[in-house]
Amino acid sequence: MSSTKILQVNGRSYPWMKQPVVVVCVDGCEQEYINQAIQAGVTPFLKKMVAQGTVLSGDCVVPSFTNPNNLSIVTGVPPSVHGICGNYFLDREANQEVMMNDAKYLRAGTILAAFSDAGAKVAVVTAKDKLRSLLGHKMRGICFSAEKADQATLEQNGIDNLLELVGMPLPSVYSAELSEFVFAAGVKLLETRRPDIMYLSTTDYIQHKFAPGTPGANAFYAMMDDYLTQLDELGAVIGLTADHGMNAKTDSAGKPNVIYLQDVLDAKIGSGKTRVILPITDPYVVHHGALGSYATVYLNEGADLESVSRQISAIPGIELVLTRTDAAARFELPADRIGDLVVVSERLTVIGTAATRHDLSELNLPLRSHGGISEQRVPLMFNRRLGAIPSDHRVRNFDVFYLAMNGAV
Amino acid sequence: MSSTKILQVNGRSYPWMKQPVVVVCVDGCEQEYINQAIQAGVTPFLKKMVAQGTVLSGDCVVPSFTNPNNLSIVTGVPPSVHGICGNYFLDREANQEVMMNDAKYLRAGTILAAFSDAGAKVAVVTAKDKLRSLLGHKMRGICFSAEKADQATLEQNGIDNLLELVGMPLPSVYSAELSEFVFAAGVKLLETRRPDIMYLSTTDYIQHKFAPGTPGANAFYAMMDDYLTQLDELGAVIGLTADHGMNAKTDSAGKPNVIYLQDVLDAKIGSGKTRVILPITDPYVVHHGALGSYATVYLNEGADLESVSRQISAIPGIELVLTRTDAAARFELPADRIGDLVVVSERLTVIGTAATRHDLSELNLPLRSHGGISEQRVPLMFNRRLGAIPSDHRVRNFDVFYLAMNGAV
Repeated sequence: MSSTKILQVNGRSYPWMKQPVVVVCVDGCEQEYINQAIQAGVTPFLKKMVAQGTVLSGDCVVPSFTNPNNLSIVTGVPPSVHGICGNYFLDREANQEVMMNDAKYLRAGTILAAFSDAGAKVAVVTAKDKLRSLLGHKMRGICFSAEKADQATLEQNGIDNLLELVGMPLPSVYSAELSEFVFAAGVKLLETRRPDIMYLSTTDYIQHKFAPGTPGANAFYAMMDDYLTQLDELGAVIGLTADHGMNAKTDSAGKPNVIYLQDVLDAKIGSGKTRVILPITDPYVVHHGALGSYATVYLNEGADLESVSRQISAIPGIELVLTRTDAAARFELPADRIGDLVVVSERLTVIGTAATRHDLSELNLPLRSHGGISEQRVPLMFNRRLGAIPSDHRVRNFDVFYLAMNGAV
Repeated sequence: MSSTKILQVNGRSYPWMKQPVVVVCVDGCEQEYINQAIQAGVTPFLKKMVAQGTVLSGDCVVPSFTNPNNLSIVTGVPPSVHGICGNYFLDREANQEVMMNDAKYLRAGTILAAFSDAGAKVAVVTAKDKLRSLLGHKMRGICFSAEKADQATLEQNGIDNLLELVGMPLPSVYSAELSEFVFAAGVKLLETRRPDIMYLSTTDYIQHKFAPGTPGANAFYAMMDDYLTQLDELGAVIGLTADHGMNAKTDSAGKPNVIYLQDVLDAKIGSGKTRVILPITDPYVVHHGALGSYATVYLNEGADLESVSRQISAIPGIELVLTRTDAAARFELPADRIGDLVVVSERLTVIGTAATRHDLSELNLPLRSHGGISEQRVPLMFNRRLGAIPSDHRVRNFDVFYLAMNGAV
């Protein structure tokens, strides 16, 4: 492998790495989490990254959800290219909500797969299993989730005996330990297997619960800081970013500000005229009750696009309503997998379908969530000084591999 | 004084109070400060207000600054009526930036003055002296600032010997104690003078420094909670609101995101073609460096309105650019005291004039500030159950006197 070898993936150039490259996607990492943790003095390594490395801000993909952004990060391109624009979309022919976590929905190859094809040692560790098959698509190497670490096999995951390797018990899917397992595994993998590229992707369980700078949040970042220190000491080039930000979605009493959009539209336009899909919906809803700041609306016969759009725009708390075409253009989404309208709510407000379809009793803390434009700004941090970035380049979270591999001196 | 007596002030009806009414304006009180303080368990009285009183969300005035909002609260009307739309405006004839903290700029009478005229005992305590003359305009009764409490005289302020009454030393203008003095004075006044109406207005020194839920913020709200408990025990109807919210304005490293708008416009359009005014500017700049999310731009000869507007809109971080007419209509501002353009930046970004005119070396903590639409949502909390509010009424912070006096059962 020559040091000048360059791989082309989805139209972007990635030079062969000289040191191991570790990209960390910290789920729900609003920039303020890092700022406050540094202020509180609990993250000496992040502070060192500020002083000696590079700190950027970038835009994530809207909808600011986990899957579209993780896929953008590992493909280096927006959902218009890779196809994954949420957890769910409506299959119009079957008239069914379809989960998009199967690799058959992926329309672009990943940087990880390309490098593994070219002979690089690649490892992927994700917190929840829902992302594993998408991230590991066509990739040779190690790929497993913390959630199902106990079930990992050499055949399926390229590794086994994980609990022993990592030295932690299997974490609960709703825990800070689920993310800690990801970091701990990353350190052990770098120590024992030294992959050329590693992608570590956590879960936002903590960020949904705790505001930036509060004890629960700072404890998480202190934990993360310790593992980052180890990855750095092992010689890795580290690029850290987030899939999306996170904001409080409540009033001063902690009551969530929810627009039950299906209820509103049924009342205004008539039952059955529209179908509201919340692409945040996934099998793990305890921490957000399937409530985010983004929805897509499919219109049935008899519903007028312009009139529905106008009525949604008039609802207090709605930030933006776009037609399919405009949303696909502005947010770089696959037009065939979004509804006739895309709806984004304001920072403090989330969108639900029908009140009866959201069980808020499971929310034991005031709602914090994401999905909107208000969660688009995310950190990009590197433990190396990067070269200058052209001032007209809009930095994206999915530039992280590109910057880590091209820009690290 | 009959119990059915009703005063009309600026077109709104205020019934004579049956119990003392205390309105508290907590400067910079983003709703999340209260939510997090309740979650942390440090504000039992605020928690009780949630359970037994009334909690609303409302919109403050944009620009989300202290003076326009304090004046809206005490007049019950927007700046288009009362005239105060910032700390500074440009006197075009003199071509000079003029401070608007003189009562001569006030175009409407206050609820406080109207009640004092009608024989009510009225008291106003404000943290900083800059607000005192505006709030106390034409009002008989007690009116003083914590900042100059030591200089208060019977003649000027309707009260003297304040340090002795309050039992606190004169606080520094940059301190949490400046606000604590306001609350402590409020309790002592209610105990000893029992005013019919009292307005307490704090300073956002703490909110500029500390994020919601962090120790410095929680300590402030715990302090406040203790004084609110006492006001409640003394039988007051309490209405609490904020002049504006507060947001972090930095990246993950705590570096402020600043658009130096005068520099940008000078470079693009030519020096001297435009004049950027920051109405947040005031003599107390240590905690925000005169950086907020709102600016107004005056055009000189040779500058084309539409072209300048388009160029400002294209700057990353700008949320909105409105012409004078549109801004006056949308934000209910006095058209003669705003520039040709009104510019609002996004949640995480502030606007400066020229880089050389802002001394950020005084900022010893990451910038938190306000001024934009992103700081418009504020709490309204009452220690009484209010009657239902019509669903089509847009709740404003300047409804707080109206709701406290009309709605309290």
